[in-house]
Amino acid sequence: MNYPANFNQETDELLSQTGTLLEKVIEAWTELQSKQPLVQCITNSVASNYAANVLLACGASPAMIDNPFEARTFAEICGALSINVGTPTSEQMQAMSIAAQTVTEKNTPWVLDPVGYGPFLQWRSEKVDELLSFNPTIIRGNASEISILAGNQVQSKGVDSTLESHEVYQQAESLLAYAECIAISGESDFILSRPLNGVIKINGGSFLQPKITATGCALGALIAAYSAVSPPTIATVAAHVHFAVAGKLAYKKAQSVGSFNVAFLDYLYEMNSELLIKNADIEFITDDRQ
Amino acid sequence: MNYPANFNQETDELLSQTGTLLEKVIEAWTELQSKQPLVQCITNSVASNYAANVLLACGASPAMIDNPFEARTFAEICGALSINVGTPTSEQMQAMSIAAQTVTEKNTPWVLDPVGYGPFLQWRSEKVDELLSFNPTIIRGNASEISILAGNQVQSKGVDSTLESHEVYQQAESLLAYAECIAISGESDFILSRPLNGVIKINGGSFLQPKITATGCALGALIAAYSAVSPPTIATVAAHVHFAVAGKLAYKKAQSVGSFNVAFLDYLYEMNSELLIKNADIEFITDDRQ
Amino acid sequence: MNYPANFNQETDELLSQTGTLLEKVIEAWTELQSKQPLVQCITNSVASNYAANVLLACGASPAMIDNPFEARTFAEICGALSINVGTPTSEQMQAMSIAAQTVTEKNTPWVLDPVGYGPFLQWRSEKVDELLSFNPTIIRGNASEISILAGNQVQSKGVDSTLESHEVYQQAESLLAYAECIAISGESDFILSRPLNGVIKINGGSFLQPKITATGCALGALIAAYSAVSPPTIATVAAHVHFAVAGKLAYKKAQSVGSFNVAFLDYLYEMNSELLIKNADIEFITDDRQ
Repeated sequence: MNYPANFNQETDELLSQTGTLLEKVIEAWTELQSKQPLVQCITNSVASNYAANVLLACGASPAMIDNPFEARTFAEICGALSINVGTPTSEQMQAMSIAAQTVTEKNTPWVLDPVGYGPFLQWRSEKVDELLSFNPTIIRGNASEISILAGNQVQSKGVDSTLESHEVYQQAESLLAYAECIAISGESDFILSRPLNGVIKINGGSFLQPKITATGCALGALIAAYSAVSPPTIATVAAHVHFAVAGKLAYKKAQSVGSFNVAFLDYLYEMNSELLIKNADIEFITDDRQ
Repeated sequence: MNYPANFNQETDELLSQTGTLLEKVIEAWTELQSKQPLVQCITNSVASNYAANVLLACGASPAMIDNPFEARTFAEICGALSINVGTPTSEQMQAMSIAAQTVTEKNTPWVLDPVGYGPFLQWRSEKVDELLSFNPTIIRGNASEISILAGNQVQSKGVDSTLESHEVYQQAESLLAYAECIAISGESDFILSRPLNGVIKINGGSFLQPKITATGCALGALIAAYSAVSPPTIATVAAHVHFAVAGKLAYKKAQSVGSFNVAFLDYLYEMNSELLIKNADIEFITDDRQ
Repeated sequence: MNYPANFNQETDELLSQTGTLLEKVIEAWTELQSKQPLVQCITNSVASNYAANVLLACGASPAMIDNPFEARTFAEICGALSINVGTPTSEQMQAMSIAAQTVTEKNTPWVLDPVGYGPFLQWRSEKVDELLSFNPTIIRGNASEISILAGNQVQSKGVDSTLESHEVYQQAESLLAYAECIAISGESDFILSRPLNGVIKINGGSFLQPKITATGCALGALIAAYSAVSPPTIATVAAHVHFAVAGKLAYKKAQSVGSFNVAFLDYLYEMNSELLIKNADIEFITDDRQ
């Protein structure tokens, strides 16, 4: 499968597909509000407070259970699991393996966020490789992380991306061997999915989002929350649209990082079907060369 | 002791008692501002930044000393200790026992917040059972946690409450065997105390408070701060009133989670005796069936 | 060297020196924006989110790599390292030694923030003593910490300062044996430097800054960021000026802790050469008794 570089090449059929997709996003959002699923997060020290606040604002119930002694019993009852390897400790690393194995046994959806994956951070990268064997439902990351995870040699340093998401989404296809859905966040977000013959592109958000730490990590937790109430692809799209719409609206209200972040949390909470319909920008990109 | 379901049944005597209580709350608040007590917090990764900011805003001096190697020497000099088992690590678990034992020896007040207590989170629950043997000055939690801690079988999952506080306060009485004061937070807060023949109910706050993560954890730290400068029952009431008044005022200013949280911190800091007098809503509920 | 108590005693030469200094601060700020250096932070649980947000707002790229298994490989590629001993874990303590040794070998600049240094917190104090042997490029702390580190007996408790910065800067000179630059934060900040025959005093900021937790810790991380793109003394001055100007402007906009913090982050991000020129308040204090 090869994807065209031209994102505007859309047929009526595709437009109707993205119309259906938006309906399903709204359905997922409605489900999230009514079911308030319990989401277990094993995440980094930078993201723990922020991810919990994002989940609460969006309608889910976060639980940051990240020790190996309670990981099994809690993973057995959670609605979804989010694993993020941002600032791992030895105990968290143990908890990750236990929780991933448990949700796999229970057929509970889970998200893997391979923060910092690459040659400079081997300990976590080996753990990510191990976790892949449990087949995460969804893998999400920035373009550098996903590109390296897909086997490419990228000169990535640190945890911020040095690549653009549109440069990477074709490479990411190989990761569908491990997970049902792959999400690459960036100026636009790209979502690959096994059932789809194409790629979903989500536009929106604000250039300020990557200037707020842990927005990506919180997005991973939100994907997990949505996956507790809807199928993986819909869940992934819904979380990205929820973020993109809130980010777009927040930027209209506030143009610097502190006040933008406040407005962003406000809009995550104030989200509704009307705002989603009016602001969601979902494209479906197919391969026109087949 | 049995408490009536009818909260409006108040006599002149009771009204005068709550009048006295408000005076004592203001006294406690004034003491907190002038003494700025040093509060040692062993808390979870979600709450550490937020609880420290809440303590600073309210007038106390936070110190998040949570390693077992410094827990003894620091617990010897702190004005009060707050222990919260939200996201424990093995080292924090050791620090909790050491610090609890030390403050007990020193007769320094301390607060226990049994976050997530229940059958799904055994490791922490066993630690909470152990910590009870050191007799915390005050135990605070949400309705589910307090109910399970009091020996009831509740289908609680995660760390958010599935019960209302008014359903639980009668059950909580058995916990007065361990602690001088029990506080149950919820839409209204209920405070039980050994010296009282009744229950204190605090109204106010906002339904948005549980949509901000770690507000309960921060409240536990604030109770500890107040207990460093006033008797346990007054301290517990004062912390809850401080929170309830700030929450009520914040909601008038901001109706979504991000901006509400900013306004909440603002009002915690801007608190004064006038705002307390004008907005505090304290009820005293006695047993009229004896 | 003795410093006069009279801070107003300035000659034309000194004024011209601080003029040059401001130019160099602006140069450093411009470099920070264009190079976005990768800053490794081993910091405390209270500061991790806040310090990362401060670095992003100011133009740097934070990476909170604090485990001993990745500390060496990451310290080899980072532009600067910031070590803060606020709430250490055993694994972080190992990471600190490894990272400090690595950056020393690589001649990469690094900052040491000895939070809570003193007799009540021995574990970290011994680690700080060990880290001093690796010769940090810059040491920064509040007046109590720096005073005790310089060998004085101060009745400090907790992590907040009980001394004023102007009481301490003369004592701090002995620490120039370990580091090229010493910074003492307070109502005014004082910076000592080996190449200087005097002390630089930075005015500005707001009394609300110490009411926000982790502002000092974030300042340490920002000094590290600046040191990745400019010489140690300029870096230290630039970070303090960046903070002081943003704090001063934020206080004009918001007078309580929650909204002040939002405005502070906004101004850290909105900083530019014009705001720096208009608001920077740098004094140069020489010894007029020699």
